[in-house]
Amino acid sequence: MGTTRGSKIDPIYRYVRALVICFILLPCIKLSLGAKTRHFKWEVEYKYWSPDCIENIVMAINGQFPGPTIRAKVGDTINVELTNKLSTEGVVIHWHGIRQMGTPWADGTASISQCAINPGETYNYRFKVDKPGTYFYHGHLGMQRSAGLYGSLIVDLAEGEKEPFYYDAELNLLLSDWWHKNTHDQEIGLFTNPFRWVGESQSLLINGRGQYNCSLAAKFSSNTSISQCKLRGTEQCAPKILHVLPNKTYRLRLASATSLASLNLAIGNHKMLVVEADGNYVQPFEVDDLDIYSGESYSVLLTTNQDPSNNYWLSIGVRGRLPQTPQGLTILNYKPNSASKLPISAPPITPVWNDYNHSKAFTNKILALMGTPKPPVNHDRRIILLNTQNKINGYTKWALNNVSLVLPPTPYLGSIKYGLKNAFDQKNPPENFDSINYDVTKPPVNPNSTYGNGVYMLGFNTTVDVILQNANALNANVSEIHPWHLHGHDFWVLGYGDGKFSADKDEKKLNLKNPPLRNSAIIFPYGWTALRFVADNPGVWAFHCHIEPHLHMGMGVVFAEGVDRLSTIPSEGLTCGLTGKMFSGQKN
Amino acid sequence: MGTTRGSKIDPIYRYVRALVICFILLPCIKLSLGAKTRHFKWEVEYKYWSPDCIENIVMAINGQFPGPTIRAKVGDTINVELTNKLSTEGVVIHWHGIRQMGTPWADGTASISQCAINPGETYNYRFKVDKPGTYFYHGHLGMQRSAGLYGSLIVDLAEGEKEPFYYDAELNLLLSDWWHKNTHDQEIGLFTNPFRWVGESQSLLINGRGQYNCSLAAKFSSNTSISQCKLRGTEQCAPKILHVLPNKTYRLRLASATSLASLNLAIGNHKMLVVEADGNYVQPFEVDDLDIYSGESYSVLLTTNQDPSNNYWLSIGVRGRLPQTPQGLTILNYKPNSASKLPISAPPITPVWNDYNHSKAFTNKILALMGTPKPPVNHDRRIILLNTQNKINGYTKWALNNVSLVLPPTPYLGSIKYGLKNAFDQKNPPENFDSINYDVTKPPVNPNSTYGNGVYMLGFNTTVDVILQNANALNANVSEIHPWHLHGHDFWVLGYGDGKFSADKDEKKLNLKNPPLRNSAIIFPYGWTALRFVADNPGVWAFHCHIEPHLHMGMGVVFAEGVDRLSTIPSEGLTCGLTGKMFSGQKN
Repeated sequence: MGTTRGSKIDPIYRYVRALVICFILLPCIKLSLGAKTRHFKWEVEYKYWSPDCIENIVMAINGQFPGPTIRAKVGDTINVELTNKLSTEGVVIHWHGIRQMGTPWADGTASISQCAINPGETYNYRFKVDKPGTYFYHGHLGMQRSAGLYGSLIVDLAEGEKEPFYYDAELNLLLSDWWHKNTHDQEIGLFTNPFRWVGESQSLLINGRGQYNCSLAAKFSSNTSISQCKLRGTEQCAPKILHVLPNKTYRLRLASATSLASLNLAIGNHKMLVVEADGNYVQPFEVDDLDIYSGESYSVLLTTNQDPSNNYWLSIGVRGRLPQTPQGLTILNYKPNSASKLPISAPPITPVWNDYNHSKAFTNKILALMGTPKPPVNHDRRIILLNTQNKINGYTKWALNNVSLVLPPTPYLGSIKYGLKNAFDQKNPPENFDSINYDVTKPPVNPNSTYGNGVYMLGFNTTVDVILQNANALNANVSEIHPWHLHGHDFWVLGYGDGKFSADKDEKKLNLKNPPLRNSAIIFPYGWTALRFVADNPGVWAFHCHIEPHLHMGMGVVFAEGVDRLSTIPSEGLTCGLTGKMFSGQKN
Repeated sequence: MGTTRGSKIDPIYRYVRALVICFILLPCIKLSLGAKTRHFKWEVEYKYWSPDCIENIVMAINGQFPGPTIRAKVGDTINVELTNKLSTEGVVIHWHGIRQMGTPWADGTASISQCAINPGETYNYRFKVDKPGTYFYHGHLGMQRSAGLYGSLIVDLAEGEKEPFYYDAELNLLLSDWWHKNTHDQEIGLFTNPFRWVGESQSLLINGRGQYNCSLAAKFSSNTSISQCKLRGTEQCAPKILHVLPNKTYRLRLASATSLASLNLAIGNHKMLVVEADGNYVQPFEVDDLDIYSGESYSVLLTTNQDPSNNYWLSIGVRGRLPQTPQGLTILNYKPNSASKLPISAPPITPVWNDYNHSKAFTNKILALMGTPKPPVNHDRRIILLNTQNKINGYTKWALNNVSLVLPPTPYLGSIKYGLKNAFDQKNPPENFDSINYDVTKPPVNPNSTYGNGVYMLGFNTTVDVILQNANALNANVSEIHPWHLHGHDFWVLGYGDGKFSADKDEKKLNLKNPPLRNSAIIFPYGWTALRFVADNPGVWAFHCHIEPHLHMGMGVVFAEGVDRLSTIPSEGLTCGLTGKMFSGQKN
């Protein structure tokens, strides 16, 4: 990373430093030997498509939905020239899980790392992939992720490196949820008083394919008057069959780009061995089914050790919300069976949506593989974020410590770099809430909240703890799951707990020994989650609930660190808001 | 105008010049005495609304649909601070019919006069209204006009001035058409292969109110199983009743912001006297009904000389396309009758859609009122524009002389001013078509067309003729009406004719005596229309079919004149495309 971080610094210094670092860290020589730049030219536009057999409109990249899979090796540079072919909308793409060390302007978050790309314009995303793993990319403006702007990004080990586990081949599954209602309309509902929630999705998609309310749903639910599932045709919604050979080990790469749904994935008759989470190795553990929340990725190993004369269902279903969406399905096809041969046993049933003990048991099994960097023992700062559902002037919002995020028109990266004081609230947002008096088990006594766009300014290289504190929503006896995602870093998940976090009581329970490194972590209903990270990546970074409508309703905060260390920020991402005015002011 | 055009020049020069001009042109003193600046702060956002009793989403300004009416006096400066409160879309507003003398950057055409305003940003539209008349404003990006972004703009005479006709009071009617399908979806259909046309609108609106398929439509059509019309309630779709007193004269101000529909308006039992068209006085003439095409405005005088014990229907219906849309209706309420009293006679029936003789008879009656400036006797340049429906790579388009307009990401006003050669095609687009061999009565022999974004560079202060030549569309025996609208100028409508324009034969028929001055003119099926204007307004100006989907399919051209005479262009409108890069390039 050292070589990357300094890439905008004096080139001779950079060269010398790179040499020094390479001699000290021999593996880096290996990295740079095979590394290359991978160029992509992408155009984003809307397209008619039938992801779940019902015709609708998707955001496509080069005509594809989901977007093309990027496959690279550690040390490679990815260069995506993204052209906005939309008519009236801006667009950005976030490279989820890629830390963007030294390239914070390539993080693809509108209003944070760059201006949205205007219609007709091209933005150059150029960044290094420095860690192997299963990642994805997606839109990060409005509800463009829900509209289908996502795809897979897989980083392989550098040439000659070995994974700490064996597999024969791999299969890639990008999971998502799908609504029939236009995402623009969904979005407007969120900003309406009275509030109109997006509701549960109509379908779940695996690699962009699902089946709205077809006979399989009927077979395993109460609805009986619906059409045949299209499992074997050439329909756009026909599932991508997973072809396998018996007695082999497959790495299933799973990533969830859902807008809302927490998912559970299972494969009939098969167990899975979890080996990777969010691009970090974990201590392998076996499961019958696996929870995957929006923004998370996993690798699991699947051994095809079942009766080879059968095929098997792979199913995904909704967790954490009363499901109103049929399971998403595809077939694990044991070759040489015909892919058309339907499995003899029913698709695995998703665990009951509110069986949180099941979810917690799974989550608690996720621990770092030996050799994973350990967290610093002490933190320099602890930010406690109370997650509440609120009201502002009658509008329903989500807030952190009573502040609901509204992103400013000027990207923070530019306004912080150039000291533009009017670009956002200069006051640090609150570090805590009234934890003595606030009852997290009850609806907020005073649900009124305020809008804000202040930034948590983090000391460079300091260790920051974040305690995410869940609470009751506006309605009594409701507390939701929120999957939080941090840009620009991995964090250590030090622990989860029920009720209100207590430094006295809970501090000592935190896991400093083998906490998993991740970029996403959930908070369970009425619970807390403790995270730790080192603010070592100069830039401005979103930290937010990955449920897209929740983010849109204000459920996020912004961290900034070491922006003064960035010698130059490419101006192509700053031609809007006050930075746009600043630059153009030079001319006139 | 002189004072306005120089407003960015040296202030002392400006002051002296203004003084000189004012002493020469005494009326101008009168103007400037009462003139003031009218400030408006507007926010554009989407909103749930039921324009035709069916809930949908509209583009609202400050929560209002249609947007607020601007009312000003000649000589006033309008200052609209427009804030984009949309989530992902840019926005602009065009002040239709206002010539923007000296302020071409305030014309509100995305990619031509400015960059679209980004979400969260504010653009300052500041311009003078220099001519009395009935105008309107509307979105000029994507299909935002169809989405409901429009409102009235009425310019009264300066204090002490008198109209050349008498009326007791006035009524304002802004006409539009309304679709149930989301405009984003409509737009995507236009860019899809196979092509998906937007189809006929579901409703016609008068001041943003209409009734989808209610009993009145049933009463006067064949459908009988539909619901009661909501004429008297507080519904958002209940018509604005036109309250009048008997034996008075009312000025009805009419403007059509339709996306597609050509309309005909009539009032039961009443005749109307046409006195104004597009902000210019015309020789008064009486009609039973009046055609009004998208982009046009009229004033008509209505004398309430009918049986005062009754109320009467005002109706609008579709012309020029096989109508599939019920009439739009409201009630002319003779006070003191109750507004709830339904008229005893049926709403006026719209003339048969393809009775073009009826339309031509009306159009030919429109002549300039004595005292209207006359056109120069000779033209310096004549541009002949063949209007054809075409194909490009299988996509359906409209083209002029075989070029289908695709607007570039950099606004022309900036790229021409700063000589950015890569911003658009530097070659002048074609001045003519192969008029000897092209058969306008048949589908194009070779329907293939090309995209283009070249500019017709007009000599400053030269007299330009444009001959709009209609032709057969892609399907045999189809030729459509197109209402063309010119920005930045009024033109003289020198004449209309059938078939192919022939300089030899038709030149002498052109009306140079009293042609009406307008900003909009139609071409009839298989016909031509001859226009003349003086290129006296430094700037870049769209000239296009005012049917929004047609414009979007390429049916427009761009004129530029005297851009070098503009000493400065406010940079706030140029922070996109190459001008955005140019400015930001200064910094980094």
